[in-house]
Amino acid sequence: MRGRSIRGSFVHAPVRGELEVLRVAVITIASDGTITSIGRAADGVPEGTIELPAGQLMLPGFVDLHLHAPQYPQLGMALDVPLEVWLGKYTFPLEAQYADLAFAQERYETLVTDLLASGTTTALYFATVHREATELLAQICLKQGQRALVGKVVMDDPASCPDDYRDASAELAVAETRAVIDHIRALPDNDRVLPVITPRFIPSCTDAALAGLGALAAECDCHVQTHCSESDWAHGYALDRYGKTDTAALDGFGLLGRKTVLAHSVFLTDDDMATVRAAGAGVAHCALSNMYFGNAVFPLRRALEKGLHVGLGTDISGGPSGSMLEACRATAQASRLLEDGVDARDSRETRGVPNSRIDMLTAFHLATAGGGVALDLPVGMFRPGYHFDALLIDPVAEAGTVRLFGAEPAERLEQILYTASRPNIAATFVGGDLVSGASPQ
Amino acid sequence: MRGRSIRGSFVHAPVRGELEVLRVAVITIASDGTITSIGRAADGVPEGTIELPAGQLMLPGFVDLHLHAPQYPQLGMALDVPLEVWLGKYTFPLEAQYADLAFAQERYETLVTDLLASGTTTALYFATVHREATELLAQICLKQGQRALVGKVVMDDPASCPDDYRDASAELAVAETRAVIDHIRALPDNDRVLPVITPRFIPSCTDAALAGLGALAAECDCHVQTHCSESDWAHGYALDRYGKTDTAALDGFGLLGRKTVLAHSVFLTDDDMATVRAAGAGVAHCALSNMYFGNAVFPLRRALEKGLHVGLGTDISGGPSGSMLEACRATAQASRLLEDGVDARDSRETRGVPNSRIDMLTAFHLATAGGGVALDLPVGMFRPGYHFDALLIDPVAEAGTVRLFGAEPAERLEQILYTASRPNIAATFVGGDLVSGASPQ
Repeated sequence: MRGRSIRGSFVHAPVRGELEVLRVAVITIASDGTITSIGRAADGVPEGTIELPAGQLMLPGFVDLHLHAPQYPQLGMALDVPLEVWLGKYTFPLEAQYADLAFAQERYETLVTDLLASGTTTALYFATVHREATELLAQICLKQGQRALVGKVVMDDPASCPDDYRDASAELAVAETRAVIDHIRALPDNDRVLPVITPRFIPSCTDAALAGLGALAAECDCHVQTHCSESDWAHGYALDRYGKTDTAALDGFGLLGRKTVLAHSVFLTDDDMATVRAAGAGVAHCALSNMYFGNAVFPLRRALEKGLHVGLGTDISGGPSGSMLEACRATAQASRLLEDGVDARDSRETRGVPNSRIDMLTAFHLATAGGGVALDLPVGMFRPGYHFDALLIDPVAEAGTVRLFGAEPAERLEQILYTASRPNIAATFVGGDLVSGASPQ
Repeated sequence: MRGRSIRGSFVHAPVRGELEVLRVAVITIASDGTITSIGRAADGVPEGTIELPAGQLMLPGFVDLHLHAPQYPQLGMALDVPLEVWLGKYTFPLEAQYADLAFAQERYETLVTDLLASGTTTALYFATVHREATELLAQICLKQGQRALVGKVVMDDPASCPDDYRDASAELAVAETRAVIDHIRALPDNDRVLPVITPRFIPSCTDAALAGLGALAAECDCHVQTHCSESDWAHGYALDRYGKTDTAALDGFGLLGRKTVLAHSVFLTDDDMATVRAAGAGVAHCALSNMYFGNAVFPLRRALEKGLHVGLGTDISGGPSGSMLEACRATAQASRLLEDGVDARDSRETRGVPNSRIDMLTAFHLATAGGGVALDLPVGMFRPGYHFDALLIDPVAEAGTVRLFGAEPAERLEQILYTASRPNIAATFVGGDLVSGASPQ
């Protein structure tokens, strides 16, 4: 699509709570894959313009703000154990196997292929503790064309990390993180993969590692990601260790900045939210995962009303789906249970948290534009200067699951978002490049 | 498959909490579509036995214990309004259009096709108030081979039902229900479609209609379905009108028996549960729908521990998915939020309802065997004398979403149930007949 124009219907949600339908519009894409102009077809259509097939429409690609690439093979497994058991018995042993690059390559290639087919055009990845396998993931993203932020996981505390799966020391953890940053930034023709400083979470890191990574973040002007106040246990851990919350502790280590994304953040206090807001950091809300491991529902609407940047994450494999459509659905659903409450024996007045509901269109905004804002990247909406990261939606795909019975697709976005499945994503584009499916001619 | 034997792996959950893997087994199907024998392949394989392809396995078909056939066109729409608004503004006007049989035919045919492709081999349907369209739905199910229970909806109270969409009188409502029962029972070659007495719910019915339907149920030995204590509003309505609960009121009208299925039942009291148990009635738990319209989570584990029959329902279109796989997932997820609670500001001790969690294998049991028990039909497991209603699962289907990376499928049922999508259902069989997909040779 680079250097071409596309004529058709485009639907996006640049502003929370508002859906913008660009009907019979023309979007022109520069040779660098960014959007140069958006106009009405009635005002003129350049020669060689690509026509979207009748009944199809384009959406911005999804931004998955939190997922663990190595955990894809255990998607949907072991969801009935507490977080700390899930880590020690299942997750760490699986991740340890990524020391084997052949093992890693097969799984990472499949993951990236599947995510692109599912419409995830930008992904913020936790990799593993291994430098080489992390670099391999970055290479695979670049090769397959996915916009990605890839982090070598730091976990160096011998008291909490397995002997066969941890950084040998804080110094080495920081040095290898720096090496991965340099490697990714030096990848040839790299127009879309960025490094991320990635302390797993406070319970798995020494103070020396956290402080070293904070200094590195300032030095390298790099994205940062970690888990924050995910569960009762994780939230309580920081309070026990530091006498302050995860958020305050991360801030103290220099890990909270404009390009930081905090996964989960279920137990953020009002003070924490103010700290996150002041730092310009973002939250990756992982509704599906939190149902299993979060012990409560992230107060999303409260966070939005306080002005925090929030996007959505699948949290593969804390959540059992890698689909951002599922993340949108779970976001709406969890918010309803937060609003209404869960225990039917309580009175309606005391059961839930009023004014917590999030509708599907807001979830869609968060999964696209919201993720872009959280990452401070020009993605998630159709706007001049933004990357052309987009999905071609075919509501009548034979193997798909959308049934409009003749209704106009652009008027049924909620229905499409609720009922679409992978076959309804006819094509995925990143930076104007076709990266999955088949392009219209 | 009638009159043939099948060799392969079969996985089912006849007992709650237990998974039974029949590895390298042979199931023989009689000419009437029921299972005659199940044995080990090592003990002999009859001539002409069909071999399941390597890596594939069979599961029992799903029993959807609650869905509204006419609401399929609004699947995933209007999920942000209260139940009573959703009914009056969206649902009743849509259902009213099924007076037009051509309108009904297109939508019902698509629905049944889609449900079979999604693995729903038995469905307990609410149709509409219209006699002819209800009979048409029954005919379509029979033609397409789905095991179905189809009910003409009764809603005759002028105070609560729209003028253009209600029964003209209680007498006529009962008479037309009787006519539909007779019609369905007289359908030629009908080995799988049954009638259901279907008062919509107490708020839409007069006492005369409820009493008349109760008498009809006794006379015709017919299944009964209705909504019960679905939301704060619906639960409170019966209390206001009768000074007793939905359950007690339905019991008083003779509508609670061994073949009754109560949809939702979110607000059942302990006394209600005892009443349901004593009647041998069943509950259709609709976890996904309840997230939008239920105002709380059905206390499923409490109901199971009290010995109630419970199955799962999609509640098209109160829930935004017609997939019973999604119903299983939502059941597990809602149960986790019930157990853990939702408001992070509450202490862990007071936040949720301990011991409420339901794992995926239990949800699978409920979606198959549990539904069969609730309906008192021999479906939902592989057992001699039971109907051969089954799904052929292809975990490596190219367009599918299961990724086992070489693991043995029969050992990964949880993962398959969490990650499978429609393309992973290679074939669906009802009563030994192929009704969707392609049969192995």
